[in-house]
Amino acid sequence: MARGRFITLEGGEGAGKSTQIRLLAEALRAAGIEVVTTREPGGSPGAEAVRDLLVNGEPGRWLPVSEAMLLSAARHDHVMRTIRPALDVGQWVLCDRFADSTMAYQGYGHGLDHGVLTALRDIAVGDTSPDLTLILDIDPAKGLARAAARRGGEDRYERMQVTFHERLREGYQAIAKAEPLRCVMVDASAEIDRIQADIRAIVTDRLGVAL
Amino acid sequence: MARGRFITLEGGEGAGKSTQIRLLAEALRAAGIEVVTTREPGGSPGAEAVRDLLVNGEPGRWLPVSEAMLLSAARHDHVMRTIRPALDVGQWVLCDRFADSTMAYQGYGHGLDHGVLTALRDIAVGDTSPDLTLILDIDPAKGLARAAARRGGEDRYERMQVTFHERLREGYQAIAKAEPLRCVMVDASAEIDRIQADIRAIVTDRLGVAL
Repeated sequence: MARGRFITLEGGEGAGKSTQIRLLAEALRAAGIEVVTTREPGGSPGAEAVRDLLVNGEPGRWLPVSEAMLLSAARHDHVMRTIRPALDVGQWVLCDRFADSTMAYQGYGHGLDHGVLTALRDIAVGDTSPDLTLILDIDPAKGLARAAARRGGEDRYERMQVTFHERLREGYQAIAKAEPLRCVMVDASAEIDRIQADIRAIVTDRLGVAL
Repeated sequence: MARGRFITLEGGEGAGKSTQIRLLAEALRAAGIEVVTTREPGGSPGAEAVRDLLVNGEPGRWLPVSEAMLLSAARHDHVMRTIRPALDVGQWVLCDRFADSTMAYQGYGHGLDHGVLTALRDIAVGDTSPDLTLILDIDPAKGLARAAARRGGEDRYERMQVTFHERLREGYQAIAKAEPLRCVMVDASAEIDRIQADIRAIVTDRLGVAL
């Protein structure tokens, strides 16, 4: 049996990753492919337990290095216990956020040393790198407005943090430029159906499956 | 104000680390030194939360790489929030287990790649390496019998695991040999007072404080 393909979706807040994963999974299933959708941080029982540590408590609870190590511990569990077993039996895995998120948020966003993050990624992921990474790119102001509207909240926090989200976007652009064989930027400012059509064309082109 | 000194105690089960730390702390305080005693995993609120993840649940809950990353995340928190602040105000820190325990248990005991563990140690610890590491060395059979007697339990588990504890002891011996300026082996098969006398002599010799 052929090994499945591993596709990750990345991007800032409000880029529409979860919607696009759902639609892509539908298309792949219609093409006869078994699909597992998952997300980070989390995606396995151990990783979800670590996620609880990360999302609860005070904002300053974790120092950046500890946070990156906790994320990496969770990622290793997720890879070994969810992603790799699925790929091994021929299923395709669609993952909402993966190692690039840690580089973008902790590295480009919060300024943590990139060499540290690359070392942690290599230890956590081993040889289970994504076959394709779709980076949903959108102007942070627009993405944050979308995210705020979705939550029904006001957008003061989002406006205050816009420089952080600009660094995040530049980080994703740098990652895409450094690994063009794996990463493709997708214009996520368009309508949902237009974005999904672009994504299906990229998956067909890169992974050879007609959608 | 002079920076404090950082002393770690290492060794297998039943080597008597906690007793010796208590006695050494008494001697240092009698010499007018402010002392903080701490332990791993744990030693700060964040590290204790990670410790809870490590000590609860099924034995196979964590893969070795995830376990090493969780230990390292806790260690970084412990270093940055407990150890380094104490050293910075001139206090001496005595720590029951530190990074050498991860190399001995996960590396020599469970066979995890030593390069991975060294990389994690360097990221977690930065430049806060111990000034002195006392490795309490004891025949595993004797140490395990001591540990079993202390817990009032029977020793079936301990006897079954004796090959693991032999690898652990060899690991500590290799660590001491590789870093003779930092590490000193202590014969922990002797009586408590004899071991403490040896430890005080080593601390006097290495760190220049009369005890």
